Amino acid sequence: MSKTLLHGYFRSSAAFRVRIALNLKKIAYDQAFRHLRKGEQRAPDFLKLNPQGLVPALEIDGEVLTQSLAIIEYLEETRPEPALLPKDPAGRARVRALAYAHSIEIHPINNLRVLQDIEKRFGADQKAVAEWFRHWVKETFVPIEHKLATDKATGKFSHGDTPSLADICLVPQVVNNMRFDIDMGAYPTISRIYAACMDLPAFADAAPMKQPDAE
Amino acid sequence: MSKTLLHGYFRSSAAFRVRIALNLKKIAYDQAFRHLRKGEQRAPDFLKLNPQGLVPALEIDGEVLTQSLAIIEYLEETRPEPALLPKDPAGRARVRALAYAHSIEIHPINNLRVLQDIEKRFGADQKAVAEWFRHWVKETFVPIEHKLATDKATGKFSHGDTPSLADICLVPQVVNNMRFDIDMGAYPTISRIYAACMDLPAFADAAPMKQPDAE
Repeated sequence: MSKTLLHGYFRSSAAFRVRIALNLKKIAYDQAFRHLRKGEQRAPDFLKLNPQGLVPALEIDGEVLTQSLAIIEYLEETRPEPALLPKDPAGRARVRALAYAHSIEIHPINNLRVLQDIEKRFGADQKAVAEWFRHWVKETFVPIEHKLATDKATGKFSHGDTPSLADICLVPQVVNNMRFDIDMGAYPTISRIYAACMDLPAFADAAPMKQPDAE
Repeated sequence: MSKTLLHGYFRSSAAFRVRIALNLKKIAYDQAFRHLRKGEQRAPDFLKLNPQGLVPALEIDGEVLTQSLAIIEYLEETRPEPALLPKDPAGRARVRALAYAHSIEIHPINNLRVLQDIEKRFGADQKAVAEWFRHWVKETFVPIEHKLATDKATGKFSHGDTPSLADICLVPQVVNNMRFDIDMGAYPTISRIYAACMDLPAFADAAPMKQPDAE
């Protein structure tokens, strides 16, 4: 069997998602670390693996996979148990829509490269960067909190009583929020789901501060 | 059979993707229009359907689905032919990673609500907004062009010789680029694939300027 190697960075939300999925599915893996603040994702050896220069990249089954959500869908298709998506198409669409709310509507606007860009391009100081971050979280967390709180498909987790792709995307966003002093009291359902996830070793062990490259 | 109704906006890239997918799968649908520049996606009747206040939303099979990529995965699962994803997991991961490069790495940073926000927040003028837009396109289009040009899995389309989810995300991004004078000469493979797609009525008929609400 070929090795499974995750190229990541402790603080990358996208790498955090893949770590959770690998843990939930009990897939053994090694990690290689690419320090984003030092620009190590631009090193020639890594660009050969992923020309986009983004983490994570996962070496698995002799393939090099990129984009966290594409990687997780691949894991789901090749290692179906435990399932990260429900069986019914409407349930799958609900889980994916929740996952994308976190990973498409918030994260791409708030990730490190964009925060660094608004500093450089618009002279945003630390306070302005934090306001930007909090604005985009609020834009999506308010409706998602409402949806999760009022929709009976919500259970112990975002969808029923087992963790899914939606939770895999929720948890890294909540962890990120902590760095920007976001008052999670406004989001009781999201907070409850976050706590339920972090009770599971698959989530807790994937946390940024548990990684060997954590600072 | 319940009606299929797409809530969209002619210029929304995400709605454009769903129109292409519906057309490729020959699913008959009606459209309701939500004028984003007039804020019609915030109308109470629409917020009831989609509390996030984002287009598109698709009413189909008695469900209300949101998030373009979740909608398209649902269509693929419930109406498998013609397939928008290849059969092999590694191929599916490649197509999804390409789709996400467009729809996660570029589009969320460059969509209308973010462009309006940098105008308001940082006082970005038209020129600064255009530079922002072009910057994020270039960050992703350069590596994607390289990948598509050098990877033998690329065919007439992004993956082999049939249109896929990757093309469904590529085409609206290229159309968006035109509004910001991006020199597509730097991206010959992307341009070639775009042209091949637009030769198909499923893509051409979904174009923004072909929609009844186009201005």
